[in-house]
Amino acid sequence: MKFTTFLSKGQARLGVVDGADVIDLNAAQPQVPADLRAALAAGIDLAAAGQAAIAGSAPRLKLADLSLAPLVPEPGKIICLGLNYFDHAKEGGREKPEYPWFFLRSASSLLAAGGKALRPRVSVRFDYEAEVAVVIGKTVKHATLDNALDAVFGYTCFNDMSVRDYQKKTPQWSIGKNFDRTGGFGPVLVTADELPPGASELRIQTRLNGQVMQDANTRDMIWGVAETIKLITECMTLEPGDVIVMGTPAGVGQARTPQVWMKHGDTVEIEIERIGVLSNLVEDEAA
Amino acid sequence: MKFTTFLSKGQARLGVVDGADVIDLNAAQPQVPADLRAALAAGIDLAAAGQAAIAGSAPRLKLADLSLAPLVPEPGKIICLGLNYFDHAKEGGREKPEYPWFFLRSASSLLAAGGKALRPRVSVRFDYEAEVAVVIGKTVKHATLDNALDAVFGYTCFNDMSVRDYQKKTPQWSIGKNFDRTGGFGPVLVTADELPPGASELRIQTRLNGQVMQDANTRDMIWGVAETIKLITECMTLEPGDVIVMGTPAGVGQARTPQVWMKHGDTVEIEIERIGVLSNLVEDEAA
Repeated sequence: MKFTTFLSKGQARLGVVDGADVIDLNAAQPQVPADLRAALAAGIDLAAAGQAAIAGSAPRLKLADLSLAPLVPEPGKIICLGLNYFDHAKEGGREKPEYPWFFLRSASSLLAAGGKALRPRVSVRFDYEAEVAVVIGKTVKHATLDNALDAVFGYTCFNDMSVRDYQKKTPQWSIGKNFDRTGGFGPVLVTADELPPGASELRIQTRLNGQVMQDANTRDMIWGVAETIKLITECMTLEPGDVIVMGTPAGVGQARTPQVWMKHGDTVEIEIERIGVLSNLVEDEAA
Repeated sequence: MKFTTFLSKGQARLGVVDGADVIDLNAAQPQVPADLRAALAAGIDLAAAGQAAIAGSAPRLKLADLSLAPLVPEPGKIICLGLNYFDHAKEGGREKPEYPWFFLRSASSLLAAGGKALRPRVSVRFDYEAEVAVVIGKTVKHATLDNALDAVFGYTCFNDMSVRDYQKKTPQWSIGKNFDRTGGFGPVLVTADELPPGASELRIQTRLNGQVMQDANTRDMIWGVAETIKLITECMTLEPGDVIVMGTPAGVGQARTPQVWMKHGDTVEIEIERIGVLSNLVEDEAA
């Protein structure tokens, strides 16, 4: 099953996707909160609610016509992995890491599919990173490899857009990963049951103005989703609506010769096989 | 004026502090949301609401009798500075930094004043860090040095408890700074008008089982609050209820000879002059 989060009268609403159509899940099934995180936290059976909504007579909207919101508009936390593909570690001149380089993003950095990414005033070194995003469905601490994937609700696309000079100002990358409107997130979540375990074996690409810049397969992640959840939950509790962003493969703009930076008017697309295409236009921040 | 966030029937409630008393602000002034972040986001005049509550006849609770919650239970983001006191950078063998080492904490790492800090199963290297926390009152981007402090609602104490081996597993500190129940936050917020600009010139201490471990003055912060807000808002929007945690002075357990780690049964107190004392007991995570 597929879900999306769209805007209606300025408010984010949770919708179930049926082909090209979206049904407002709260309108069709009033027991379902209008926010994905809240629905997961309440323990709603979203598969059942979604099926009932699809089978029912609620009004249908066209996905292509909707303005979307970030797939989870305000996650409790967004945990990102650096250097989770060895070829990307290598292109940055690094060894194969022995532990994921975890950092956090804030909700204020998120950007909806179809929204305009913001190339900030203070830098031109604005880069893309294609990544799989994992949306957590259940509270979990001290997961094991065997049960870690039980905590996953589903998967979507993420563009971990990075302001490289700020990322490198100090050893802490966080500031360069938290600029406003740089975390592309969506457009559609595919529930875990419809994908290979841990969203492995999926082709993942970035296209910039139609040109393929990254082209890899999620099987090449050093830490898979289950192992990542195990490692994170040694340390902290994952909660419904939390997001894990699984790192990017080789091909980023920074590592190219010459380097490639996203600029005003560019279109950047992240495509993950069987999940979808996350597309954003880039615009310059006003002076 | 002083505010606190306390638990009533399991729910966090915003209270105004009057001497040893607390008045439930939402009960006394129903237009005030029960959550500090929501009240700030709604643009409520909390000084006026607090004064009216204090002057009124609403029931009074004893601060000392209350179970508290983290001062802002769920900030939109929590931005922490590393190495913001030169003596602490030096004790870690580092040069004076040229830009703050920013990293983020998640709300799930927060701990109320009086709550039990969790020494995790996976490490004994559990350290304290006394810090000033800044609670943002207004939305701000591209602040200037002249107007940055207008965005500050008030200040409180923070204990940026750190799991040092996880902090150092990779160059990214975030994982060691986000363990459950490690971010002590409270007990009482003092509004900015009652303190020196940027909460400078205040003595800041850590005591571990009564022994003074850190003893410094906030005037020694490399980046003051106004400069920090200017730097952060070059990159991202600060929103009401966001929190900035201003870094720690020398004296951490990791830098001592022999090293000192917090253990089950310890009491750790952070005291900031004119703000208050944040006290937590340490307990081991169950095996």
